[in-house]
Amino acid sequence: MDEIRKVTHIDNVRLSDDGTSVVIIDQTLLPGEVKYIELNTPEAMYDAIYQLKIRGAPAIGICAGYGIYVLARQIKAKDFDGFYSEFHRLKEYLNSSRPTAVNLSWALNRMEGVVTANREKPVEDILALLEKECRAIHEEDIRMCHAISEYGLSLVKDGDGILTHCNAGPLATSRYGTGQGPILLGREKGMNFRVFADETRPLLQGARLTAFELQRAGVDVTLICDNMASIVMKNGWINACFVGCDRVAANGDAANKIGTSGVAILAKHYGIPFYVLGPTSTIDMNCPTGDDIRIELRQPEEIKTKWYAKPMALPEVKCYNPAFDVTDHSLITAIITEKGICRAPYTESLAALFD
Amino acid sequence: MDEIRKVTHIDNVRLSDDGTSVVIIDQTLLPGEVKYIELNTPEAMYDAIYQLKIRGAPAIGICAGYGIYVLARQIKAKDFDGFYSEFHRLKEYLNSSRPTAVNLSWALNRMEGVVTANREKPVEDILALLEKECRAIHEEDIRMCHAISEYGLSLVKDGDGILTHCNAGPLATSRYGTGQGPILLGREKGMNFRVFADETRPLLQGARLTAFELQRAGVDVTLICDNMASIVMKNGWINACFVGCDRVAANGDAANKIGTSGVAILAKHYGIPFYVLGPTSTIDMNCPTGDDIRIELRQPEEIKTKWYAKPMALPEVKCYNPAFDVTDHSLITAIITEKGICRAPYTESLAALFD
Repeated sequence: MDEIRKVTHIDNVRLSDDGTSVVIIDQTLLPGEVKYIELNTPEAMYDAIYQLKIRGAPAIGICAGYGIYVLARQIKAKDFDGFYSEFHRLKEYLNSSRPTAVNLSWALNRMEGVVTANREKPVEDILALLEKECRAIHEEDIRMCHAISEYGLSLVKDGDGILTHCNAGPLATSRYGTGQGPILLGREKGMNFRVFADETRPLLQGARLTAFELQRAGVDVTLICDNMASIVMKNGWINACFVGCDRVAANGDAANKIGTSGVAILAKHYGIPFYVLGPTSTIDMNCPTGDDIRIELRQPEEIKTKWYAKPMALPEVKCYNPAFDVTDHSLITAIITEKGICRAPYTESLAALFD
Repeated sequence: MDEIRKVTHIDNVRLSDDGTSVVIIDQTLLPGEVKYIELNTPEAMYDAIYQLKIRGAPAIGICAGYGIYVLARQIKAKDFDGFYSEFHRLKEYLNSSRPTAVNLSWALNRMEGVVTANREKPVEDILALLEKECRAIHEEDIRMCHAISEYGLSLVKDGDGILTHCNAGPLATSRYGTGQGPILLGREKGMNFRVFADETRPLLQGARLTAFELQRAGVDVTLICDNMASIVMKNGWINACFVGCDRVAANGDAANKIGTSGVAILAKHYGIPFYVLGPTSTIDMNCPTGDDIRIELRQPEEIKTKWYAKPMALPEVKCYNPAFDVTDHSLITAIITEKGICRAPYTESLAALFD
């Protein structure tokens, strides 16, 4: 049990005991090497986020919260104006490391709000409040993931076969994760699932991160190529699919890692429930349908050369490399948030979350 | 035109001029290196087939035909019983190199039939007949591929978007190929298709071979990861799917490269025709349904370490690595053979091919 706890509670990001640095796992080295690195300069924090040493929107937010606290402690100025001026400059610098990640600016703005709301207090007191706030950001994420995991767990039973795509586990969030949350929470409770993890080309988050997390947590995990999801389902080995999400439209259309929509179509064909898990902050009620979600296109090198000892396609061969796709709401059995389980019609059930 | 002819007519397998070895392109080195290797021992032939230096059901059949002829020449026994005993042993050994493709045993049985039908003749004469037979197997395949390509071409029109999975081009067969045959034949006739080639994990035949063949033949080809087939179809870019086959059951269920059944399910979901192309030798009328087709399972290393500069999953992570899957006949729009286009009910249309 200690072993399970240690691992399912993998500390992908934390404040050092003396509060002088942020400690993260360098995810670019996984699964070959579990290396913790300490970040205590603005440049090191920027680089860690930009280079994807830490990734997953919630994890980036937590890292940025701890990071700006660590940097705030280093500010020499003892008067508020001098302190805030430097704090704001550092915050803007960190915020520019991945300008598209919403959790990054969300966490940094929340930390800045603590500063501006307490301008009458001594800097020492503001620092104490900042530490409290960054720890709260982390703890809230843990509670949110735990709630999502509990709801997700209620949809499966001991011994079930579960298929995952990409990574929405502890490394991307905090303890448990979202998409992998029910599996890890269930394992902690002594349940045994048989998990099939899509490797998730081209960046292999399923192989490098999900299989790593689940294996170390003592979960029975089998790695497959993305194109093996069909035969695994046909073999009768899958009782449910669990995936995370990057953005959910008001009608329930869900953007997630490329290939997710294909898994959903297969699941429907084989009569298997397909569940999308994510916090309510991922639901964008200003986005009417999936057609309004912009899909990021990435470089051909990720398909042709990345990871490989030698190129796997001729240099002149074109590639189409979308990072995400949109799963139509009609293919989704339920959307699981920290506030509960939403089912069709999603236009109503999702709206009810925000009432 | 010369350039196109040179490439579509790539010699992936042939008998050496002196008849003492089989000469193949080592397909594991493509697309970086076009290297011809000579096979003249049972172990080298077994290894070439098992290691996929030569692959594609028809090409394996052609290689096995030439291979058993080369080995038969090396048999010392001059009496029929001694000759046949050794011939049979060698044939069984080659036949054990890969289980799923019917062409391997089909070609070897056909060669053995030449031996047993001529037991009254001197071994020298039997060898001459064997050479004739293996050359005939190759020549028949070229004619078959051309006929299949013509039938397939009748199902699409200039400018169409075509999705392919794995490789069933010249490298997998003989000239033109089967699954890629209509594309290459159409290109020769001045037609332009927009082809999306699934990379086809784990062995990347789509990236390494199909994209290689099509790019060099001047076809507009775009490489995608297998999990991008859904978004490409959803984008409205695909008018037809063309795939090869390794074994077709009497009811039309078709075994082909792993992931094919997933493509077929997606195609059905998006209302896109899904065509299976292969010679009648691939149709196994003794195999009632796809459930009777044995699926070859391969090593986890193909998923976790092969091609990579460093391992992409923990050593202790399990993998499920089936080389093929079976596409249900209900998902197949038509099966295209050298004798014509078969449509449902396949139990009748396939049987009619053999009347």
